[in-house]
Amino acid sequence: MFQTYDERGGPEQGRLALPLIRAELASLGLDGFIVPHEDEWQNEYLPDCAERLAWATGFTGSAGAAIVMMDKAAVFVDGRYTLQVGNQVDGDLFEIRDLVEGGPALYLREAVKAGSKVGYDPRLVAPDVLSRLETAASEARVVLVPTAPNPLDAAWADRPNEPTAEVVAHEDIYSGESSASKRSRLGEALARDGNVAAVITSPASLAWLFNIRGADVARTPLPLGAALLRADGTATLFMKPEKTSAALRGWLGNEVALDEPERFEAALRGFKDARVLVDPASSSAWVFEALKGGGAQIVRGSDPCILPRACKNAVELAGSTRAHERDGVALVRFLAWIDREAPKGTLTEIAACKALEQFRAETGGLRDLSFDTISGSGPNGAVVHYRVTEATDRVIAPNSLFLVDSGGQYLDGTTDVTRTIAIGTPSAEMADRFTRVLKGHIALSRVRFPKGTSGVQIDALARMALWDAGFDYDHGTGHGVGSFLGVHEGPHRISKNIHAQPLEPGMIVSNEPGYYKTGAYGIRIENLQYVNAPADIPGGERPMLSFTTLTLAPIDRRLILAELLSRAERDWLNEYHHDVYARLSPRLEADDRAWLAQATAEV
Amino acid sequence: MFQTYDERGGPEQGRLALPLIRAELASLGLDGFIVPHEDEWQNEYLPDCAERLAWATGFTGSAGAAIVMMDKAAVFVDGRYTLQVGNQVDGDLFEIRDLVEGGPALYLREAVKAGSKVGYDPRLVAPDVLSRLETAASEARVVLVPTAPNPLDAAWADRPNEPTAEVVAHEDIYSGESSASKRSRLGEALARDGNVAAVITSPASLAWLFNIRGADVARTPLPLGAALLRADGTATLFMKPEKTSAALRGWLGNEVALDEPERFEAALRGFKDARVLVDPASSSAWVFEALKGGGAQIVRGSDPCILPRACKNAVELAGSTRAHERDGVALVRFLAWIDREAPKGTLTEIAACKALEQFRAETGGLRDLSFDTISGSGPNGAVVHYRVTEATDRVIAPNSLFLVDSGGQYLDGTTDVTRTIAIGTPSAEMADRFTRVLKGHIALSRVRFPKGTSGVQIDALARMALWDAGFDYDHGTGHGVGSFLGVHEGPHRISKNIHAQPLEPGMIVSNEPGYYKTGAYGIRIENLQYVNAPADIPGGERPMLSFTTLTLAPIDRRLILAELLSRAERDWLNEYHHDVYARLSPRLEADDRAWLAQATAEV
Repeated sequence: MFQTYDERGGPEQGRLALPLIRAELASLGLDGFIVPHEDEWQNEYLPDCAERLAWATGFTGSAGAAIVMMDKAAVFVDGRYTLQVGNQVDGDLFEIRDLVEGGPALYLREAVKAGSKVGYDPRLVAPDVLSRLETAASEARVVLVPTAPNPLDAAWADRPNEPTAEVVAHEDIYSGESSASKRSRLGEALARDGNVAAVITSPASLAWLFNIRGADVARTPLPLGAALLRADGTATLFMKPEKTSAALRGWLGNEVALDEPERFEAALRGFKDARVLVDPASSSAWVFEALKGGGAQIVRGSDPCILPRACKNAVELAGSTRAHERDGVALVRFLAWIDREAPKGTLTEIAACKALEQFRAETGGLRDLSFDTISGSGPNGAVVHYRVTEATDRVIAPNSLFLVDSGGQYLDGTTDVTRTIAIGTPSAEMADRFTRVLKGHIALSRVRFPKGTSGVQIDALARMALWDAGFDYDHGTGHGVGSFLGVHEGPHRISKNIHAQPLEPGMIVSNEPGYYKTGAYGIRIENLQYVNAPADIPGGERPMLSFTTLTLAPIDRRLILAELLSRAERDWLNEYHHDVYARLSPRLEADDRAWLAQATAEV
Repeated sequence: MFQTYDERGGPEQGRLALPLIRAELASLGLDGFIVPHEDEWQNEYLPDCAERLAWATGFTGSAGAAIVMMDKAAVFVDGRYTLQVGNQVDGDLFEIRDLVEGGPALYLREAVKAGSKVGYDPRLVAPDVLSRLETAASEARVVLVPTAPNPLDAAWADRPNEPTAEVVAHEDIYSGESSASKRSRLGEALARDGNVAAVITSPASLAWLFNIRGADVARTPLPLGAALLRADGTATLFMKPEKTSAALRGWLGNEVALDEPERFEAALRGFKDARVLVDPASSSAWVFEALKGGGAQIVRGSDPCILPRACKNAVELAGSTRAHERDGVALVRFLAWIDREAPKGTLTEIAACKALEQFRAETGGLRDLSFDTISGSGPNGAVVHYRVTEATDRVIAPNSLFLVDSGGQYLDGTTDVTRTIAIGTPSAEMADRFTRVLKGHIALSRVRFPKGTSGVQIDALARMALWDAGFDYDHGTGHGVGSFLGVHEGPHRISKNIHAQPLEPGMIVSNEPGYYKTGAYGIRIENLQYVNAPADIPGGERPMLSFTTLTLAPIDRRLILAELLSRAERDWLNEYHHDVYARLSPRLEADDRAWLAQATAEV
């Protein structure tokens, strides 16, 4: 079993940790210390040993920070976590402050006495964040002290070990391109720009560039490490020896040297007067300091793996298609099972999670979940980032909506799908909202668009049917998805937030409009889809890009008001359901096949 | 008559000017000189005396630059002007280069000998442009020499005088807010941010802030000048004494000092150690140098007039509504006249321009055109920025499309409208394309959207019906429009180009999708519309913004394929036409009224 349902964090945790941290700071002569949520790799899911913010405060959100002073402390969270932080953090010990408006920099200005020495771990802070902190500290006459090793790690007696999961080959039958080919074309680009090397610290980029996978963090098969890619296509990969094997050395070949992480700093210091590309969004201030210390000419730019990693090749897209067919079988079995079990009135959110995980495991290909399943019944469905625990678990009640957002990690692809299911009889309001969400989903699935179009330009298509009636949802519409890698992957997205990255052929992106009625129910319909190469349209002048839908699972017909759909929207839905049935039914037992036939009948 | 139809520029012009410029440069000891298109005020329409690029080269486009060296010269233009520059500039004397890819900075690197002294006029160049030039010059070991006065002005013997049109009051019945009120609230914002003053050099901002209008450039009633607005709401306005009167002094009141432009520099140098707000997008490098020279703390930021100027108040919106009704009467008379005259087969593009100008003049309120009318018959309609001249003038032929994009300046508002008219029988293809453009126009008129939405998010609505069929257009969908001011006004727009400015209540914006078939015909449908305050929708949860259409003129029913329109689209069209008829028919003579009745009949 992958997912657990325990409560994490809580105010007792911060009460225990604070005196331990302060004792350690005292021994170092520091007056305070900055604790970001981020780890050394800017991971979405942290290894347990890097959950320093949760250990120090009890707050387990996915973004945040704290500052621990000798006589006070503060936790910084964004608007998503206002409720959660109140439950998880002792308000007598920690002041709660806004992460976005001001954040730690404002705290240095407002709340820290001039002359104080405040430590930070330079491996955990991005260079631009550090610049803002330094500006604030300088104005407040506070001294920022880079502190290594991290004093929290000394204070944290039972800190888990750093992960040492074996790193293994990711075969070309899945990746579609050898590491040598990737290194060669990226090296050529470095040479063209006059750079001698690039620093790669993003674990997903290491995984993609070297065609390797690890298991150092939950939910994403990441190998933690670092690398230097040189303009001649050779590279050095810095990785703990415990994680590497003779087989891995063989797989990496002669052009990739393996070295120990302790040697990374010396390597960074070896680029005197040479131009080195480094991404301030993924490499820490520590990397920049080491490069600068060695006299390198730092060239700030995007990690060169990000765009090619996002644009899946034909082999990766074929793999993802297979993974979605496999995942679709599990989903259909699950949806049929829900329809049988939920009317009994005893099924719980956790039981549903476990069943879904079991159906995915029975495909034989499941390596991990791609994220903790969001299993939200009734009002819990309206909590956008809900994670069910033993304490919040609800029975999936009659005449309610049940929202399930889940995904699997398979060697050939990563899935992410949301379905909203009518339990019993939905209200007219629920059906109206569901149908509007569906209209948005269909619009974003059908759209044709020219080269150069970015996600911000088409985001509104998914919202218009809601906007028309005075509704909206407060999250993005689509995120990139990796190939047996992160379920959230840049550089593209479909979002209101301004961004210029065009949607390029091969990119996988989610299409997930929603509607949430606080205290009542949540609706979301999510498929993954990939961008097709520009194609001519008969009678047209300009080739247009389009999407192909990957996800295969019926959309609940009991929640659809057919009269709200246009002819073209109905056609889309019927064709989609026809495709789902045609591709999944041969792989189902008779009862599930019968269920799927009625679930995909024409509307 | 406002508009003229002469050919401007041409290769002979550059042949005449080059030796004169070089003689002047020789006398100054310069090896070359940079000639931008921009004038001191970053105007869209230049006063004749500032048409230095056209005088030096013969190129009359609205954007560009030149560098004149002693032994060679180059003209820089963007993609829109590739054809035009080839016709207007002598290719033996000027190398043609790309303005966007590289531009003058790349020329300094590639084509100018080390050690050369190249002059520039610091009043004509934005500070960030100058920085890029300085970087390039420093790498190429070229010496950039700020040169005042501009040596072109000495070489240009018959240079027109600088404009001295009288500056007059713009009454509160048009502006809706006194200058004292505007200065007071902007001054308070300056004080809040710790700034002592703001530099205002945009003529449109001067016009708005002081409720004045001038006539220094064609098509926009701008007063050229400069101002300093202080945090206490007082101001100094620098303007040539020939343009001011006792009446103007009385109108400006005691809190606004009038001073001569020659004193502006000393005023800029008088802010030692004080924080002064200045906009690098509208104030030249010369302003920044003067502030720096006097020891001011320069605060870079948006001109504080831009956003409040764009958000029209109720008085301005009521004025614009009146102006559009007045303009609509002229348009309907023109469209009816076209329907009578064009079938005779002798009507020309210029004759149509003159007639339209005459109909507008007969409203009694016309102060100027808001831009030169685009009057494009057949293939000329496909030239997006077409300006008809005696040389290009065409007969408006049977069985063709005629595109007219035009507007008027009235005291109470600025108009801008495009209609595409079927002459004789349109082809099925024309009607298909027209109907797709109309669908886009309707979508962008009907959309409801939440607070914070920017134009880039809704631009695609105007394109989708074209994208679906493999078509698109290569211009923005909407631009802001002033109130008896510029017909192109920021900060908002509706465009593919990434920009973050939300659409705010009161903003006027054009809605002008199009389709262009090179060598055959052009289609564009343009109305102005303004943003309504957020309003509740019955049954909805979130207030939504919407648009109200200002422009009143029938959309040619002969070009509409009703079967391509949805029920909601037909309803929009019929309601719009009903509104046009209801509001304009009482002001028309019987024959025009009858014409309008059939032109606005239900589809």
